[in-house]
Amino acid sequence: MKLLKPEQFGLKREVEYGTPKQNEDAEKIVAAVKATGDEALLRYTEELDRVKLTADQLRVTEEEIQAAYAQVDQPFLDAIREAAVNIRRFHEKQLRNSWMDLSPDGTMLGQIIRPLKRVGVYVPGGKAAYPSSVLMNVIPAQVAGVPEIVMVTPPATGGKEGIDPFILVAAAEAGVKELYRVGGAQAIAALAYGTETIAPVDKICGPGNIYVALAKRAVYGVVDIDSIAGPSEIVVLADDTADPAYIAADLLSQAEHDEMASAILVTASEQLAQAVIAEVDIQLESLPRVDIARASIEQYGAVLLTDSIEEGINVVNQLAPEHLEIMTEDPMSLLSFIENAGAIFLGPYSSEPVGDYFAGPNHIIPTNGTARFSSPVNVDDFIKKSSMILYSKQALLDHGHKIMTLARHEGLEGHARAIEVRLTKEGQ
Amino acid sequence: MKLLKPEQFGLKREVEYGTPKQNEDAEKIVAAVKATGDEALLRYTEELDRVKLTADQLRVTEEEIQAAYAQVDQPFLDAIREAAVNIRRFHEKQLRNSWMDLSPDGTMLGQIIRPLKRVGVYVPGGKAAYPSSVLMNVIPAQVAGVPEIVMVTPPATGGKEGIDPFILVAAAEAGVKELYRVGGAQAIAALAYGTETIAPVDKICGPGNIYVALAKRAVYGVVDIDSIAGPSEIVVLADDTADPAYIAADLLSQAEHDEMASAILVTASEQLAQAVIAEVDIQLESLPRVDIARASIEQYGAVLLTDSIEEGINVVNQLAPEHLEIMTEDPMSLLSFIENAGAIFLGPYSSEPVGDYFAGPNHIIPTNGTARFSSPVNVDDFIKKSSMILYSKQALLDHGHKIMTLARHEGLEGHARAIEVRLTKEGQ
Repeated sequence: MKLLKPEQFGLKREVEYGTPKQNEDAEKIVAAVKATGDEALLRYTEELDRVKLTADQLRVTEEEIQAAYAQVDQPFLDAIREAAVNIRRFHEKQLRNSWMDLSPDGTMLGQIIRPLKRVGVYVPGGKAAYPSSVLMNVIPAQVAGVPEIVMVTPPATGGKEGIDPFILVAAAEAGVKELYRVGGAQAIAALAYGTETIAPVDKICGPGNIYVALAKRAVYGVVDIDSIAGPSEIVVLADDTADPAYIAADLLSQAEHDEMASAILVTASEQLAQAVIAEVDIQLESLPRVDIARASIEQYGAVLLTDSIEEGINVVNQLAPEHLEIMTEDPMSLLSFIENAGAIFLGPYSSEPVGDYFAGPNHIIPTNGTARFSSPVNVDDFIKKSSMILYSKQALLDHGHKIMTLARHEGLEGHARAIEVRLTKEGQ
Repeated sequence: MKLLKPEQFGLKREVEYGTPKQNEDAEKIVAAVKATGDEALLRYTEELDRVKLTADQLRVTEEEIQAAYAQVDQPFLDAIREAAVNIRRFHEKQLRNSWMDLSPDGTMLGQIIRPLKRVGVYVPGGKAAYPSSVLMNVIPAQVAGVPEIVMVTPPATGGKEGIDPFILVAAAEAGVKELYRVGGAQAIAALAYGTETIAPVDKICGPGNIYVALAKRAVYGVVDIDSIAGPSEIVVLADDTADPAYIAADLLSQAEHDEMASAILVTASEQLAQAVIAEVDIQLESLPRVDIARASIEQYGAVLLTDSIEEGINVVNQLAPEHLEIMTEDPMSLLSFIENAGAIFLGPYSSEPVGDYFAGPNHIIPTNGTARFSSPVNVDDFIKKSSMILYSKQALLDHGHKIMTLARHEGLEGHARAIEVRLTKEGQ
C-alpha cells in the first residue's frame, strides 16, 4: 500500500461506458423487444442465456418460491429477515406527507406526494447476485408505497439453470410478488416497453452487466432509471487512537469487491499509517479473494498522510467517497465538517459491513465523487411530486394584473389574455 | 381543433436529441474548454457569439447590474418582487431536516441533509430569456441553502450586444451575486470543469438551445444536471359547468409557446367540446403569435370526447401532462384520482399563467409523459443526503454474527472478517 502526501495522489478511475459495438448490440436488442415483445424476448433468452422458454414459463411460480425456501438455511433466513426489518424501519423515517398551504383569500397551494405505480428491479445472475441488494432496492420502493414491484433476473448463469434460491427468498421476504426469469438488455427493454407477458414499468433499478447498463441508458426517458454505479470505495479518516487491525480489515473488505475498488486511509499519524500498511499485508494473504483485493490495493489503494486532521477532512471532501469511516478520538465532533460522503460510519464498531448488510441505511450509495451531488437510494427515489394550485376568485382579482405585466414583458400575450378574459368577465 | 375519441388519439412527439454533427460539435467545444479553460472559452465566445472579450471582462459587474435597474419599469419590478416572495414561500415549505434515530443500545442512525455547494444556472439569450425562469431556477437552490449560485448567459443575442436588463434584475432579485457573460456549450463546459476565471459547480440547471442540451448531457456525471425539457403541454379536464372562453384562452396560452406545444381538452360534454373549438378559432386570430399557436393547435391540439368523467381521468393519467387544469363542478373531488400530472390547477380561476408567473409553485415541470416518474423543480433538487451510522459496541456484539452470516453467504469473507476481528478483540 502506497504512503503518499495528498497532493501526490490523483483518484482517477475511468468508468466503462461500453464500446460502440456493445452499444449497438444493446440498442438492437432493445429495438427488437420494443417491436415484437415476447417474441424477441424469448428469442434473445434462448440465444444469449441458452434457455428455451415459452411465454407462459417466464413468470416464476409460487411453487418455485416455496421450493427455494426449502433450500435456504435457517441462519441465513433469520439474518435476512432481521436485516429487512431494520432496512424497513430506517426507510420509513424518510416518508413524507403531501401538504397544503391555505391562504385567507381562499387560495390553496400544495405539494402532492405519490408513489410511482410500477417499478422494475433488475437482479443480475451468478456471483453478482446479492440477496442484500435485493432488499436494498425493493424495500425503499415498498416503503414509498409502490403498489407493483416486479423483479427480473436471468434464467441461468454460468451454465447452471435456475434462479439462485437465496435471491428468490430475499425477493419474497422483501415482498416481491411478480418475478420473471429474463435478464440482459432484453429484460430491460421488456420492463421499459412492456410485452404481452410483462407490463411496462415507470422506473428500472438494480445493477447489471455492461449490456444491462447500456440498455438502461437507452430506455431512459421512456422510464426513469437509477444511476449507474461505479466501483466501490472506502475512505477511512483516523487518528492514532484507532486500531490498525480494524482499519486494515475494513480497507480489505472494500478491496475484495472488485479490482477497480478503492480503499484509502487518510491520517495525520505516520505511526498509524505504517501500522495499517503492515496489517493490510498480513490480513491480505489469508483472504479467499486475495488476488482481487491485492490488485485493488495496489492500483487504487493508498494511505494519505496529512499535516492535520483538518487537512484530512479537506481531502475527504474532495474525494467525496461512497463510504467514509471516521475512527478518531471523538468522531461525532467531525461530522459537521464532512460535506461530501454517501455514508458516514462513526467510531470503532461501525465497520462498513454493518451498513452493507444490516443496520438499516441503504447500501446503494453514490460512487466516483458523485456524493457531491447525489444520495444513497432512498424513498424519494420512488415517489413523484405534483404541485397543486387552487387560486381563488379574490386572489385573481387582486393579483391578475401583475401576472399580465410579467406575461406581456415576456411577449406571451396569450398568457396575459387567459387572465384578462377572467378579469373582464368577473367584473374588474 | 380536432374532435376525437381518446382511442383515436396518439400523443407522440419525437423529442430532438441533436444530429451526430451537433453532438460532435458540442463535444469538441466541451473538450477544448476542459483542456485549455479560459482560452477556449474566450475563443468560442468570439467565434460563436461574435463578442471579443478578455478573461477579466467575463464577470458582470455590480455597476452593470445597477444600470440594468435603471432600464426596468416599476410595474415589472413590483410584480417580479412579489412573485419572488411567493416562490420563496412555497419552496421554503419543501425544506427538510436531517434526522437521527437513537437506539437504547447506543446505536445512532441518521440521514443528513445538506445543500449542494455550488450550482450553475444557464439562462439562454434572446427571446427564450425569461426573467420568470430565472426565479424558478434560482430560488429553490437558494432556499435549499446553496451558498454559491452562479449564472451564465450569452454576451449578445441576435447581433444585439449586452445582457437583457430584465434578466439581470431578475437574477439580482433572486439573489445571484456571480454572473458571467458566456453562453452555449462553452459555458456549460466552463461550469462543469472550471476555468481560470469560473470555478466549477456541482450541478447545472436551466434551459438552452440544442448545443447547450448536448453539452449538459456530455458533462453529466462530472456534475449533476437537471432534466432536459420537451415542448410544453396542457390538458384541461372539464365538464359542462366550465366556461368555454376560459378553456380556449388557457389552451391558447400553451399553444403560443412553441409549434411543438400541445393543448388538449378532455371532456364528456360534446356541447362544451364544440363551444371550446369555436372559441379557440375566435381567440386565435387576434393573438400576436397566431402562426405559432395555430401550428401547435393543428398538429398537437385536440379535444378528446370521453364517455364519462372517469374515462377522462383515465386519459389524463395516461397522458401524464405537464400542466393539468380541472374545470368541473367540484374539481377537488377529483384530485385523489389524478395519478400523473406535474402541476394540477383546480377551478375556474386557476389559469395556468397564475402558476407560470406568480402563485409560488415551480413552473419547471416534467414534460412528455415523464410526470409518471418525475417532479417539478423543487428544493430536493439542490440537496444531497448522507447516511450516518454509529454502531455501538453492544450492537456489534449482539448482531455481528448475523452480519457475518450474510457476508459469507455472498462469498465476501473480507466483509465477515472486518466484523470478526472486532468480535474477537472485544471478547466474544
